[in-house]
Amino acid sequence: MSHAKPRQSIAVDAMGAENGTAEVVRAVQLALTEIPDLGQIVLVGKARLLTTLLRKVGLDKDQRITIFPATEVITMEDKPVEAMKRKKDASMLRAIELVRSGECGAMVSCGNTGALMAAGTVRLRQLPGVERPSLAPTMPSPEQHFVLLDAGANHSAKPIHLVHQAVLGSNYARVILGVKKPRVGLLSIGTEESKGNELILETNRLLKLCGGLINYHGPIEGFDVFSNEVDVIVTDGFTGNVVLKTCEGLFKTLKAYLKSEIMKNPVRVAGGLLSKGAFTDIKKRLDPDRYGGAPLLGLNGMVIKAHGSSNHTAIMNAIRTASLVLSHDLRTHSVNDIAEANRRIAEDAARE
Amino acid sequence: MSHAKPRQSIAVDAMGAENGTAEVVRAVQLALTEIPDLGQIVLVGKARLLTTLLRKVGLDKDQRITIFPATEVITMEDKPVEAMKRKKDASMLRAIELVRSGECGAMVSCGNTGALMAAGTVRLRQLPGVERPSLAPTMPSPEQHFVLLDAGANHSAKPIHLVHQAVLGSNYARVILGVKKPRVGLLSIGTEESKGNELILETNRLLKLCGGLINYHGPIEGFDVFSNEVDVIVTDGFTGNVVLKTCEGLFKTLKAYLKSEIMKNPVRVAGGLLSKGAFTDIKKRLDPDRYGGAPLLGLNGMVIKAHGSSNHTAIMNAIRTASLVLSHDLRTHSVNDIAEANRRIAEDAARE
Repeated sequence: MSHAKPRQSIAVDAMGAENGTAEVVRAVQLALTEIPDLGQIVLVGKARLLTTLLRKVGLDKDQRITIFPATEVITMEDKPVEAMKRKKDASMLRAIELVRSGECGAMVSCGNTGALMAAGTVRLRQLPGVERPSLAPTMPSPEQHFVLLDAGANHSAKPIHLVHQAVLGSNYARVILGVKKPRVGLLSIGTEESKGNELILETNRLLKLCGGLINYHGPIEGFDVFSNEVDVIVTDGFTGNVVLKTCEGLFKTLKAYLKSEIMKNPVRVAGGLLSKGAFTDIKKRLDPDRYGGAPLLGLNGMVIKAHGSSNHTAIMNAIRTASLVLSHDLRTHSVNDIAEANRRIAEDAARE
Repeated sequence: MSHAKPRQSIAVDAMGAENGTAEVVRAVQLALTEIPDLGQIVLVGKARLLTTLLRKVGLDKDQRITIFPATEVITMEDKPVEAMKRKKDASMLRAIELVRSGECGAMVSCGNTGALMAAGTVRLRQLPGVERPSLAPTMPSPEQHFVLLDAGANHSAKPIHLVHQAVLGSNYARVILGVKKPRVGLLSIGTEESKGNELILETNRLLKLCGGLINYHGPIEGFDVFSNEVDVIVTDGFTGNVVLKTCEGLFKTLKAYLKSEIMKNPVRVAGGLLSKGAFTDIKKRLDPDRYGGAPLLGLNGMVIKAHGSSNHTAIMNAIRTASLVLSHDLRTHSVNDIAEANRRIAEDAARE
C-alpha cells in the first residue's frame, strides 16, 4: 500500500453500504482488472477490517490500493446535519475531506444520500459560478441511454439553476455517454415553446442564449423521455425525482407481472424458456448497475453517489464513472462553460 | 329519434375525432349493447352525415339516439380561445351547451383538449366551492388501476387545489374503480412527512384535516405509483402530465423493444408464440382503451375528454364513464364533500 497520488486518486467510502464492506472490497478488486488507467484507490473505513478483507482476496500488498482509516459510519437512519456534527470520524466525511484537500480527485459512496449531499455541499462548496449541486443519474433506455438531472438534490428550482444543470449535464454526458454534442431537452408538458409554467418558459428563453455551449433541442414532453429525442434531460429536482422513481417502479412492476403471466401454465413456461435470450439481452441493456453511480454535479470536487443496495458490479461502475470524469478533466470544461453561460445571461439581463 | 331525456342524457361530440365521425357512430352502436341502463345519446355534429351513418348501421330510427345539429368543428390546430369565439356552431361547444342547459348530464369529446378545457371552464364554471378543474385519467396497472390527477389541466398548483383534487378524485375513484374507501396518496419525493417542497408540506397538513371525507394514506414516492399503495394519486398538473406521458412512453418503448428482441431469431419467435397468451393477457389488462376517457373533475357539469386518436372501443368506454358518473350521482357527493373540506380548512385557518 503506497501513498495516494494527488488528483488522480479515487476515495471509496468502504462503509455505509447495505451489502457491507466486503462487497465494496470486491468492487475494488473488479475495478483493478476492468477499468483501464485506473488511478490509486483509497479505501476509507475501519483499517483492520479492510486489511483482513484485502488479504482474503490477495490485495493487501497491492500498490494500487491505500487504506485511509475512519472509525465511524453514517447510517441510512441518521439525520444528515446531525450526523455530520456528531460523527466527525465517519468514513463518508473522511472521503469527502480527501477530495477537499486535493489528495483525491473524486469520491464514491453508497451511504446516506442526504448526508452525502449535505456534507458535500458544506465541505466542498460549489464549482465557481454554480449555485448548487444536482444529482445526475444515467437512465438506461433501449436505444440511447440518457442523463437526467436534477433527480432530487433540490426540491424546487429557478431558471438559472436549470441552465447550470444543462451546461453541467451536457459536459458530463459527453464523458459518460461518449456523445460529442449531447442533445439537451427541457422537460415540460408539451413540445410547444408556449407551454409550461413560468419556470419552463424563462428557462427555455435562457437556454436559447447558450448556443455553442450546449446543443439545445428545446422543450420535450413525457412521451419523448424514452424515445431517444435527447441525451440530457433537464428538470427540477421534484419532477426529476418523481420521474426517476416512477420509471424504476413501473419497470420492476412490469418485469414481475410478465414473469407471473409466463409462469401461469406449462406452454407459456416453455415459450418463455425458448425466448429467454430476448429477456437476457433486455436485462443486460437496461441493467441499472451499468451506471452504478450518479454524480452530484456542480460541487467543487467530484462526489459519486451509488445506490445504498449496490452490489459489487454497481459499485465498480461508480468507480468507473469517477475514473472517466477525472481522465476527461470534466471540472475544467464545466467551469469554463458555466462562466460563459453566466456571462451571456448577465449580458441579457443588462440589455432588458 | 326522440327528444333527449333531461339529466340522464349524454351528449357525444361526433366531430373533431381523428378517426372521423363514423368511428364515433360505431362507438355509440357498441355502447347501446355494452352499457346497461344507458341514457339517451345525443350525437352532436353535421345532421345529414350523422343520419347517413346511423342509417348504415340500422340505427337511424332508434329511439335511444338523438341528433343535435352543429356545422363547425374545432380542429387540433385551432387555438382554444380564438376557436371558441370564431366557431360558435362548433360541435364541441354545442355539446357543452347541452350540459349547461341541463338537457344532458354529461358530454364526451375526442376534440382539442385545450379548447375543451377553456370552453368547459367558461361555459360551465366550477362546481360550488372548487376553484378550477383538473384532468383525471385512470391509469392501468397490473394489480389495481388508479386515478391520477391533475394530469395537466393546470401547470402549477396551490395546496387548496390539491385538497380539492383529493376530494373529487376520491369520489370519482369510488365510481370508476368500484372501491369503497379509495386510498389517497400525495405524490412526493419521499414517504416521510418532512420531505417535499412547500406545496407538498402544506397540502399534507391540510389533507390530514379531511379524515372521513377521504382515506388519506399520506405522501408517496415514485416507487409507489405502480405498486398498489393507493387508488388516487394527487399531484400538480405539471408533475402529473410528465408522469402520465413518461409512463405511456416507457411502456410503448418497452413493448416495441421486447418485440424486436423476440423477432431476432427463429427460436425466440417460437418461444414468443408459445407464450403469446401471457402477452395477450397483459395487453388486455393494461389496455389504455379500457378507460377511454378522463373527466375534467371540478366543473359544474361532467365533461369527459377522450384521446384524439381514440378508436370506437375507447370512445365507447368514455361514454361508459359518463354513464357511471351520472348513475352514481357523483355531482351531489362531490359538492357535499367539497363544502365540508372547505369548512374544515377555513376553521383551521381561523384557529391559526
